[in-house]
Amino acid sequence: MNVSKVISTINEQTQNGITEVYLVACGGSLVDMYPSKYFLDSEAQKIVPGMYTANEFVHSLPKRLNKDSVVIVCSHGGNTPESVEAAKVAKERGAHTIGLTHNKEANLLKYSDHQFVYEWGEDSDVKNNPMAIIMELSVEILKVTEGYAHYDAFQGGIEKINGIITEGKKLVAARAKAFADKYRTEGLFYILSSGASYGHAYGFAICSLMEMQWLNAASIHSGEYFHGPFEVTDKETPFILMMNEGRTRALDERALTFLQKYAEKVEVVDAKELGIGTIADEVVEFFNPILFYSIMCVYREALADVRNHPLETRRYMGKVAY
Amino acid sequence: MNVSKVISTINEQTQNGITEVYLVACGGSLVDMYPSKYFLDSEAQKIVPGMYTANEFVHSLPKRLNKDSVVIVCSHGGNTPESVEAAKVAKERGAHTIGLTHNKEANLLKYSDHQFVYEWGEDSDVKNNPMAIIMELSVEILKVTEGYAHYDAFQGGIEKINGIITEGKKLVAARAKAFADKYRTEGLFYILSSGASYGHAYGFAICSLMEMQWLNAASIHSGEYFHGPFEVTDKETPFILMMNEGRTRALDERALTFLQKYAEKVEVVDAKELGIGTIADEVVEFFNPILFYSIMCVYREALADVRNHPLETRRYMGKVAY
Repeated sequence: MNVSKVISTINEQTQNGITEVYLVACGGSLVDMYPSKYFLDSEAQKIVPGMYTANEFVHSLPKRLNKDSVVIVCSHGGNTPESVEAAKVAKERGAHTIGLTHNKEANLLKYSDHQFVYEWGEDSDVKNNPMAIIMELSVEILKVTEGYAHYDAFQGGIEKINGIITEGKKLVAARAKAFADKYRTEGLFYILSSGASYGHAYGFAICSLMEMQWLNAASIHSGEYFHGPFEVTDKETPFILMMNEGRTRALDERALTFLQKYAEKVEVVDAKELGIGTIADEVVEFFNPILFYSIMCVYREALADVRNHPLETRRYMGKVAY
Repeated sequence: MNVSKVISTINEQTQNGITEVYLVACGGSLVDMYPSKYFLDSEAQKIVPGMYTANEFVHSLPKRLNKDSVVIVCSHGGNTPESVEAAKVAKERGAHTIGLTHNKEANLLKYSDHQFVYEWGEDSDVKNNPMAIIMELSVEILKVTEGYAHYDAFQGGIEKINGIITEGKKLVAARAKAFADKYRTEGLFYILSSGASYGHAYGFAICSLMEMQWLNAASIHSGEYFHGPFEVTDKETPFILMMNEGRTRALDERALTFLQKYAEKVEVVDAKELGIGTIADEVVEFFNPILFYSIMCVYREALADVRNHPLETRRYMGKVAY
């Protein structure tokens, strides 16, 4: 499927152009939508973005949802019941649905006017993974409806990010191993970030640590840290800080300064040091989470190895009724 | 200050009526804005809501912000630098600012076109506390700009909620004490909720537990629980589930069913059992968080007592530079 073709087709089918973009999914797929929500919140002057965990969308359907809305639904396996239902209720309301999944037999596709069966795995270029595809869809919607001054800069970033990741993964391989060795017996981690990457702080907590390692974890927005959460800071509690390049870097730097003074177990993953700065200033911040996801996969694999807890092990998901 | 007077005054000063409502604050004050964000996300067809932790708003100012936007900023002490700055930058963009604080000398008020110095403390009626005032402002904006069919029902709820809370607090006094005795030595709690109350799950985690008790904590959306977080569930990990009345109750009930089967340390705080059902069906869901805040204060006080850790004790906030 071609992103710009899909969006121009939808836009032509609407009465007055696309007016809303709803990003709807669960867990890890919802995490992949956060950068697009942040992008549209920041850049759009007309398009209205909304982001929902699928079951809340289904039960608490926004009155704004209409025939000129686009609802993007993502489900890796493609059969998450509440995500399939979200696409179904969106279609019933007359909205245009775009479904993303890794499964070409997915039930989600039954309710998707437009379909992206995406690539996945170590060898895929990240521009073909759902996070980047959803970002491209969002950027394209903005361009088509109200214009986006940094469209070309964004496309330049899309072409560069996979190469930056490849180099970044080499750079962190040894430090991820050292991290895993150092923290192998810890039971809890706090993950800090800001801006476009906050969703991936949440994602590393709930998917990589809670789901895949059965470890306690929580995300903290770097800006919110100083308004409550920082009171748990001490020399025993581990923090992972994902530092963005771009406008919210100041928030992450403030957290770093505090952590360096009052904490001792601090792992810093810095997008700037990892080379993201070759992407244009106007758009670089939106690429931080794409980099962080791949880099943090190296960390979680190292942790899984040293803990002898394979990333695929589940006790409930797909095993018991819920 | 009179809510409806303020909103009609602002609306008359705009070119085409109010078009956006930005809710901007930090920590506990941001928590008090979440119900309004949920309300506008659900009910508005024209008004565009946005919610930001103040420092992210300042650094990543939305392009949409304009002379027809209302920016509501809340700071209890009134001098939180990033909240004051948020009101300042909003005014520089020409937006209409409404400042809420408990401090009539607050710096925030310098940049607030309209000011609410609110009541606080045990004896105040919750309708005079910031969460309800911000809800009333949001409801009034919706009514004035595009109409709100359940306006009278909402006002009925505002009149009833304080009485429901008074009875609810009596009902939970003994069980909050039992909760505190049972969990006095726990080091971590997960707080679950959904809908309008998710912000207060976050708030109980970051303010009541992390800030005021130096306990590890995290909020989990009841809908997201099944997509990662539930893998940490076991008989040793404590969960607090705040069950809403209204459209998202099904999400909380699903979490309850799972917790009853696989967890043992589960505290349920059920708005329905606490009598919220006397508020009209069309609006009851928006009142859950107002009830939960007051009820959870009983729990946190009981926990502070039994742990000999006063709620006012801080090691960093207001004590060191950050």
